[in-house]
Amino acid sequence: VAKSYRLGQLARHVGGAVRGDENKPISGIAPLGDAGPRELSFLTNPKYRDLVRETKAAAVLAPSGSGLEGIDLLEVAEPYLALASLLALFHPPAPRRPGISERAHVGESVTIGTEVSVGPFAVVGDGAVLGKRAVIGAGCVVGEDCRVGEETELKPRVVLYPGTVIGRRCLIHSGVVLGADGFGFATSGDVHHKVPQVGRVVVEDDVEIGANTTVDRAALGETLIGEGSKIDNLVMIAHGVKIGPGTLMAAQAGVAGSTRVGRRTTWAGQSGAAGHLEIGDGAIIAAKSAVLKDLPAGAFVIGIPAVEHGRWKRMRASLNRLPELRQEVRKLRSRLERLEALLEKEEG
Amino acid sequence: VAKSYRLGQLARHVGGAVRGDENKPISGIAPLGDAGPRELSFLTNPKYRDLVRETKAAAVLAPSGSGLEGIDLLEVAEPYLALASLLALFHPPAPRRPGISERAHVGESVTIGTEVSVGPFAVVGDGAVLGKRAVIGAGCVVGEDCRVGEETELKPRVVLYPGTVIGRRCLIHSGVVLGADGFGFATSGDVHHKVPQVGRVVVEDDVEIGANTTVDRAALGETLIGEGSKIDNLVMIAHGVKIGPGTLMAAQAGVAGSTRVGRRTTWAGQSGAAGHLEIGDGAIIAAKSAVLKDLPAGAFVIGIPAVEHGRWKRMRASLNRLPELRQEVRKLRSRLERLEALLEKEEG
Amino acid sequence: VAKSYRLGQLARHVGGAVRGDENKPISGIAPLGDAGPRELSFLTNPKYRDLVRETKAAAVLAPSGSGLEGIDLLEVAEPYLALASLLALFHPPAPRRPGISERAHVGESVTIGTEVSVGPFAVVGDGAVLGKRAVIGAGCVVGEDCRVGEETELKPRVVLYPGTVIGRRCLIHSGVVLGADGFGFATSGDVHHKVPQVGRVVVEDDVEIGANTTVDRAALGETLIGEGSKIDNLVMIAHGVKIGPGTLMAAQAGVAGSTRVGRRTTWAGQSGAAGHLEIGDGAIIAAKSAVLKDLPAGAFVIGIPAVEHGRWKRMRASLNRLPELRQEVRKLRSRLERLEALLEKEEG
Repeated sequence: VAKSYRLGQLARHVGGAVRGDENKPISGIAPLGDAGPRELSFLTNPKYRDLVRETKAAAVLAPSGSGLEGIDLLEVAEPYLALASLLALFHPPAPRRPGISERAHVGESVTIGTEVSVGPFAVVGDGAVLGKRAVIGAGCVVGEDCRVGEETELKPRVVLYPGTVIGRRCLIHSGVVLGADGFGFATSGDVHHKVPQVGRVVVEDDVEIGANTTVDRAALGETLIGEGSKIDNLVMIAHGVKIGPGTLMAAQAGVAGSTRVGRRTTWAGQSGAAGHLEIGDGAIIAAKSAVLKDLPAGAFVIGIPAVEHGRWKRMRASLNRLPELRQEVRKLRSRLERLEALLEKEEG
Repeated sequence: VAKSYRLGQLARHVGGAVRGDENKPISGIAPLGDAGPRELSFLTNPKYRDLVRETKAAAVLAPSGSGLEGIDLLEVAEPYLALASLLALFHPPAPRRPGISERAHVGESVTIGTEVSVGPFAVVGDGAVLGKRAVIGAGCVVGEDCRVGEETELKPRVVLYPGTVIGRRCLIHSGVVLGADGFGFATSGDVHHKVPQVGRVVVEDDVEIGANTTVDRAALGETLIGEGSKIDNLVMIAHGVKIGPGTLMAAQAGVAGSTRVGRRTTWAGQSGAAGHLEIGDGAIIAAKSAVLKDLPAGAFVIGIPAVEHGRWKRMRASLNRLPELRQEVRKLRSRLERLEALLEKEEG
Repeated sequence: VAKSYRLGQLARHVGGAVRGDENKPISGIAPLGDAGPRELSFLTNPKYRDLVRETKAAAVLAPSGSGLEGIDLLEVAEPYLALASLLALFHPPAPRRPGISERAHVGESVTIGTEVSVGPFAVVGDGAVLGKRAVIGAGCVVGEDCRVGEETELKPRVVLYPGTVIGRRCLIHSGVVLGADGFGFATSGDVHHKVPQVGRVVVEDDVEIGANTTVDRAALGETLIGEGSKIDNLVMIAHGVKIGPGTLMAAQAGVAGSTRVGRRTTWAGQSGAAGHLEIGDGAIIAAKSAVLKDLPAGAFVIGIPAVEHGRWKRMRASLNRLPELRQEVRKLRSRLERLEALLEKEEG
């Protein structure tokens, strides 16, 4: 049976205020279009404001001072953050079932903390260290001498190449490969000779990495994913890249080798950066853009190659009016020809 | 030993007509450049029409009224469809070997239909339901409470997160991850707080999903892949996206969160769409394009950002002639200066 | 304990010359910014030349005639190639541990060469052939009738669909899927009918393929990766593509079906090519570019759609100055209007 709360209880849970009936019972959360009369809905994207009028929800979680009317409200300064908290309240994580599956393969000299879980058909290589309450999903391969921090979870079928280090409270999704060889070849004549990739991957605390993303080991030293960074699916982080803490990187983005990315940068989907660059703190890279030069802190860039956002808008506007410009030039030429003819006649 | 058919038999199989020798023996199918004298070749892409003259094939499958000469023909209204049918005739699928591998790990309260196959090192979580003749490949992980429909096949190493639902007759290729957490974080101060992703993924009947593609679970509710859609490799479908039935999506395309895609849309390779959009029925998105706005039904768009195809062509043409336009403007200025000098002299 | 060498020994190992103290002991290799006083550093990218002054390295590997001063040098004609060789010297590969894990699943009629290694939870299908010293990593699935050449290594969790052929000395990284069905559907009315994909994938000798890359089997015949080609992570090679020998393809690139790629081409990150094209030998495709036409040998293209590099630069320069061009046209119009007014007055 789903738990039920009073609207006032939920408001206290998230530090918000009720505008309406504090005693209304709430047994779940749903989007505006789907919510029923015992569910809380939410307005976290202003795009959907018109849907509030039609929702059948019991109440709506909304930003403080929303001005919404005709429905009970739970107002709070940061509604998306409150939504995260309320979803966790209504959907607590499945209970842990610690233990090492008899069908896992655990190597020698492995250090395993208390309440660790290792799923069936997982492999833990010699010398690996698994912190307290770490979860190694079914079918994962944790290479020799890897370290997985406390409370970090590897979903099924993650691969950590030998020597990979992951911090605490990380969440690594299925299909992720950390520590594969960087793409480094010394071409001589007709042959591409492999440059041994002898570095490693280090993932700091509180990082999440999405399904089927790959982070390559450094040629030498470390490829680094900074603390609290969140990386989406199918992203490529090449060898020797340093991602500053608190970075958000959306799906299918890619960063080429040795580029250093500052703190709290934001990368939209399918964006990319060339290698050996410096990307400043807080930089924002728009979707599909390609960064080919260093970026200063706070840059907001877009395009291929990426340029400052304002400049891109001007170029784009000019480009949009280019057919009209061509027509204008044609007209000027006609008028000029008329004048020339006129003057010639006069002269003549 | 390969089976052999008479050309006339093949024509009857696909509802086509022979122009030439109905009794010619055919023991296989091959492209125009590779086919030998007992093989049928095919012209399904007009680009290769010239190769028909040189082919050593016994006969060529071609569109009705092809006008081809000098070789026996099997003409049919839809030759590519007929090719599909003939390939299936010559290459019947390997016989099923139903049974649950002793080396698989099957949880509790799992419902398994007749003639189901579960490969070695596969994991089937508690409460899962596997329909009749479903195939779970080696090393797959089917999470708790997943449902896999009748005759659906998961190739080796697919991961279904808990609660994922797949319809009938689907084909899911290796490395696919369905149901990983959507990329949702509520940023407050310097911290990105995880928004629990408590929805699920639903894949309707007759869907094919290519290798290493990822479809994330919805934050709430469902991420949906509509009936009969075909999705290529390394595609990203984000949380809460709805893909209408009959959609074709080529490799490395991506759709951001909550976007609703209509029926029978077509996405070329490496294309993408932003989140929270409405993409109309039958829309076509060209390769590498980025859809950043809602699209009406029947739209054909291209570019970054994507614009209507005709408009893109005009912009592109103008851009191509931009250097000439600059030169033209320079010339106009010279002529203008000459006139100005002339008039000044007159005035003077 | 790390091995130690004299600088002169290293010079002889790579055929280089010491400028400075031949007897200096070297116990490792590190980048300029990280190296300590017993480590060799290297200058393989001129961008980092200024760091040589500040490095604490014992000596620097540099190009012959580098002109660098103030530090001991190991000069050599091809320093990146020498670096590869020295890294292998200091970091020899882990010793092989041949043997078939008891926890692997090996089918019937499998041919296994001497010193082959098969990891835990790997599956080797009926009729497969594994060459001498081949390594099949943990959790790999090698389909029926596959062939894996001598000294080829599959890292953990690679999938080879049935019939895939891999040459000698290849390195296939985790998550790679070779031989999944090509994306081929014959659409008739509202239904996309599957075109059976009955060809295979052939990978020649000395190829490396990066993590989570996918290469689809041909509809008929072969998808081919030519000898000595190196392919990065998350790349998509579609059905029937032929990649010429010695090609380099960076991360997230994609090639659509049936395109034939010449010898020694270079593909930067996130680039792509449409299907059924001919890409000439030695062609270079810039990052994020989309090749939509055949390319002659030696082409260097960039853009979406990709055009010759010089032309792209001129278009880009014109585009950059487009706002100025618009202003110029406005000015010309004003001057023209002044002349027109003047002449009208005269006439009048």
